[in-house]
Amino acid sequence: MFGYFGPEGTFTHQALLTLVGDGAQARPYATVAAALAAVRAGEVEASVVPIENSVEGGVPATLDYLGAPDQDPVNIIGEVLVDVSFELAGRPGSTLADVRAIITHPHAAAQCRSWIGEHLPDAAVTERGSTAGAALEVARPDSPFDAAICAPVARELYGLVTLASDIGDLSDAVTRFVLVARPGHLPARTGHDKTTLTAYMRQDRPGALLEILQQLAVRGVNMCRIESRPTKTAMGSYCFSIDMEGHIDDARMAEALVGLRRVCQDVVFLGSYPRADDRPQSVPADGTDAEYAAANAWLAGLRP
Amino acid sequence: MFGYFGPEGTFTHQALLTLVGDGAQARPYATVAAALAAVRAGEVEASVVPIENSVEGGVPATLDYLGAPDQDPVNIIGEVLVDVSFELAGRPGSTLADVRAIITHPHAAAQCRSWIGEHLPDAAVTERGSTAGAALEVARPDSPFDAAICAPVARELYGLVTLASDIGDLSDAVTRFVLVARPGHLPARTGHDKTTLTAYMRQDRPGALLEILQQLAVRGVNMCRIESRPTKTAMGSYCFSIDMEGHIDDARMAEALVGLRRVCQDVVFLGSYPRADDRPQSVPADGTDAEYAAANAWLAGLRP
Amino acid sequence: MFGYFGPEGTFTHQALLTLVGDGAQARPYATVAAALAAVRAGEVEASVVPIENSVEGGVPATLDYLGAPDQDPVNIIGEVLVDVSFELAGRPGSTLADVRAIITHPHAAAQCRSWIGEHLPDAAVTERGSTAGAALEVARPDSPFDAAICAPVARELYGLVTLASDIGDLSDAVTRFVLVARPGHLPARTGHDKTTLTAYMRQDRPGALLEILQQLAVRGVNMCRIESRPTKTAMGSYCFSIDMEGHIDDARMAEALVGLRRVCQDVVFLGSYPRADDRPQSVPADGTDAEYAAANAWLAGLRP
Amino acid sequence: MFGYFGPEGTFTHQALLTLVGDGAQARPYATVAAALAAVRAGEVEASVVPIENSVEGGVPATLDYLGAPDQDPVNIIGEVLVDVSFELAGRPGSTLADVRAIITHPHAAAQCRSWIGEHLPDAAVTERGSTAGAALEVARPDSPFDAAICAPVARELYGLVTLASDIGDLSDAVTRFVLVARPGHLPARTGHDKTTLTAYMRQDRPGALLEILQQLAVRGVNMCRIESRPTKTAMGSYCFSIDMEGHIDDARMAEALVGLRRVCQDVVFLGSYPRADDRPQSVPADGTDAEYAAANAWLAGLRP
Repeated sequence: MFGYFGPEGTFTHQALLTLVGDGAQARPYATVAAALAAVRAGEVEASVVPIENSVEGGVPATLDYLGAPDQDPVNIIGEVLVDVSFELAGRPGSTLADVRAIITHPHAAAQCRSWIGEHLPDAAVTERGSTAGAALEVARPDSPFDAAICAPVARELYGLVTLASDIGDLSDAVTRFVLVARPGHLPARTGHDKTTLTAYMRQDRPGALLEILQQLAVRGVNMCRIESRPTKTAMGSYCFSIDMEGHIDDARMAEALVGLRRVCQDVVFLGSYPRADDRPQSVPADGTDAEYAAANAWLAGLRP
Repeated sequence: MFGYFGPEGTFTHQALLTLVGDGAQARPYATVAAALAAVRAGEVEASVVPIENSVEGGVPATLDYLGAPDQDPVNIIGEVLVDVSFELAGRPGSTLADVRAIITHPHAAAQCRSWIGEHLPDAAVTERGSTAGAALEVARPDSPFDAAICAPVARELYGLVTLASDIGDLSDAVTRFVLVARPGHLPARTGHDKTTLTAYMRQDRPGALLEILQQLAVRGVNMCRIESRPTKTAMGSYCFSIDMEGHIDDARMAEALVGLRRVCQDVVFLGSYPRADDRPQSVPADGTDAEYAAANAWLAGLRP
Repeated sequence: MFGYFGPEGTFTHQALLTLVGDGAQARPYATVAAALAAVRAGEVEASVVPIENSVEGGVPATLDYLGAPDQDPVNIIGEVLVDVSFELAGRPGSTLADVRAIITHPHAAAQCRSWIGEHLPDAAVTERGSTAGAALEVARPDSPFDAAICAPVARELYGLVTLASDIGDLSDAVTRFVLVARPGHLPARTGHDKTTLTAYMRQDRPGALLEILQQLAVRGVNMCRIESRPTKTAMGSYCFSIDMEGHIDDARMAEALVGLRRVCQDVVFLGSYPRADDRPQSVPADGTDAEYAAANAWLAGLRP
Repeated sequence: MFGYFGPEGTFTHQALLTLVGDGAQARPYATVAAALAAVRAGEVEASVVPIENSVEGGVPATLDYLGAPDQDPVNIIGEVLVDVSFELAGRPGSTLADVRAIITHPHAAAQCRSWIGEHLPDAAVTERGSTAGAALEVARPDSPFDAAICAPVARELYGLVTLASDIGDLSDAVTRFVLVARPGHLPARTGHDKTTLTAYMRQDRPGALLEILQQLAVRGVNMCRIESRPTKTAMGSYCFSIDMEGHIDDARMAEALVGLRRVCQDVVFLGSYPRADDRPQSVPADGTDAEYAAANAWLAGLRP
């Protein structure tokens, strides 16, 4: 059984189908926190949640819940990128000309603002908690709303028809989703991996972020995402959610993790897993496992 | 005339009153973007918008709108910290025991979840676009909602009464608001200032963030906030919103700005302004204006 | 049997007596290179050579011979600091007023120039290969030289008398001597140790020295001496002789050595040994063995 | 009138002829210190001294004298590289087979050791203060020495004949000489320049060298030589003699000099001058004068 940030028909649902296949049993949760709490509680094997959108940025609920210290640990074991393609979906038989009242999620409304302004300048837009919930609402025969802005999967699921497709202002918006499980399921190294963690600075250590980046740089570890999040203790106190290229079983990554652990107040390890994109892994010539092995052999030979 | 992210009675409204005084004429805007667009359009002298919350983190709409390149520049000319103190407000005559239906903004609902669970476990919570809008709704005699979670200023404005005060889970949550104007109103240096900018990396320059932090470190400039934001062009492409201690008229800051401008693809300067908090300014002994002046005089003396 | 850079009566001889005791058998060699070659050849157990003087700087012959790559390795196993106190020594019965012709080593002449200028302005100074050789010359009854500038130990050895003592311009000059053996005699860690090596940069890697220093800094390893030496291949090609605080058995030093080995073209390890001075060891809080052990245990716990 | 480290016929003399032409009046001085003191005293317009040899390394006397703080400043205004080609020179009529006794400077003896061992294994080698002095000695008809190892210019000057040429073990040894004058003769920027200085660290500032290198790196200034020298105050107290690519009139160099002046206890500027070698100048794209000018113009535009 897998969990996800629902309801059915969201982009997260779509990500789940990609990550674990069509046949898997899946249970929607009303919030990101609930979907992740279900993992910690053992209700589900793993849950899918959104972590980052190429337009909106990091998803605070996910970053905060995953990175919280003093919690039972969970690990990311997979990721997938989903094109966020918005459709305007109506009840069968309706046409674009009929649309007066639209319902959707605020993010979707924001991303389709230009299209609406141009094609449906007089339509009223009402907000709902999810795009899938909006589609479900429109599917009710007596709904006051004429159309939903939603994902293709929701349109299909709730028996609506496409009135317009690909209506987002940025046609190439992408959301990244992660599959989160309890520890013990570390994916094997593929040579094309990512490692995620949340680092808490020691208080009042000026230049703490610089220090963290140097711990990575001297081991040849490349960082591919960093986001600051408030620690929620005081204004101006931050932790950092970080993605790095490489796997905990890469020598350079293992040494970098030890370095971060030493210089930080706390490090919440969130997993090593295969990357979803096809960017080439960047490993400097002096950062390969072979180089580490050679240098360690040299060190061993120096001792009697 | 000043603009702000309204409606009347929000914490932003409260921030405006603190920043520009009770007597100022103020106009609410429905979104952060609209409040800032009004500045660029010259409709208002300056606008107040939230930029950061100690629990929720940075406000994406503000960070993105302010930091967008290729726009007419705007500058932050002041900031204020407002305690985010939530109240449960009802119609006159009502009591806590009467409350079955609550309405509020999702952030406020999230921050008061524990209190509600303990004191009103059976109450239904409905979401509305702002806490002030929630208070206005409750003020309607025939409203289906019994109470709003809102700011004290909204409760007062809409003639409600306090059913419970300080009900947030984190009693010391704080939001930072900034006053934004067109360029030309740079506040004078006070010795206790902050400078804000958005830095765009050169593409495919590994270690670009490390390079930025080193540009600050070698000049003795301390960074007090950094947030990555997507550039909205592609997944994995980020810019950084940065607050630093000091004023553009401090020698170390001026030199650091030049350094950032050189190594970055673009830098959007967002102003130097007095800090609202009372943290001591941290200037290393070799980073004072006197040290810079002495070193520049030495350099001048080396030339014939 | 121990070797040293002789002849008898040099400061190096004095250092040998301090390092291995009065009773040890010792053989003088005419050059630093010969004294070290005797170690490599197995003629002696270990040799004592000067490595650094507080006035003259590093001793090139020692640095180059020890740091040469592609040689059988040798290790420093001890060090001692010797006050370089110069005396003017004459034949028994002579007095300061009799001195017209002085003989000594060029370094000694340089370091006593002010004293000679003031007290014996008309004396001629002739140079000889060592201060002990100068004392031996003066000890010959028919020597044309009236006095030698030499170490107290040479004056005593060759039966001369003190005409003036402590005549160096810098009364606190100190020379550091090292005891060098074949590998296999690594001194145990004392908690107050030094590690020495010679690092060869990869060619045409700009910022290679900066990279080396960062490898040390991120592990909390403090550098206490660095000297560049030509690699003798081309003008502008250098290697670096480096002393660091700590022992190869300190976790931070072991990791730093591996880091240097990776980023350098070659590293010639020259030993870990107790420090002769009494400066406190500087180990940052996050660089102790306990911190490394804790971080490694944490890392181990992350894997299934 | 120019001074140089003599006597006539040394490689320094040869460097002088290259730097200022054959017709210039030149006066030899017995030591490097005397040749430089003559500049400070105004006895000569400028002096030529050796600063670095590709085999022996830096010339301590030159580095220490030039870099001494609290002295009237002098500046390097030119440099030249001279191939150090050693000859075995004898009296006219003599042959290689006649050579039993050789005289030369210790450095020359060291650099020709292999050749002597192979071709004249039974010859005695005696040391003299300079190779030119050795040639002069051999030129005396009643000299006990049969041959001198010296420069071609000395052989010619003292009427000797070549018994063997190019006898150094490293056939491509090179010495770098500098022309030193009082301030006021700063050579114009050529785009292919070098800047030299001596930097004194602040005491007890761990990582001070790292800090210096970072001041250069963030401005895109490339370092081409660094040598530590004792400050002569205490064992373990060093200053650094540094050559950098670029001219004080390059924007990046001017800013780097100001940075070094701020973070160091003292900086002794020793001049900007055209480079003698033909290595390409390495200036990063963000370190050109044009980039600095553009960034400064941007900064100026930010202020009202």
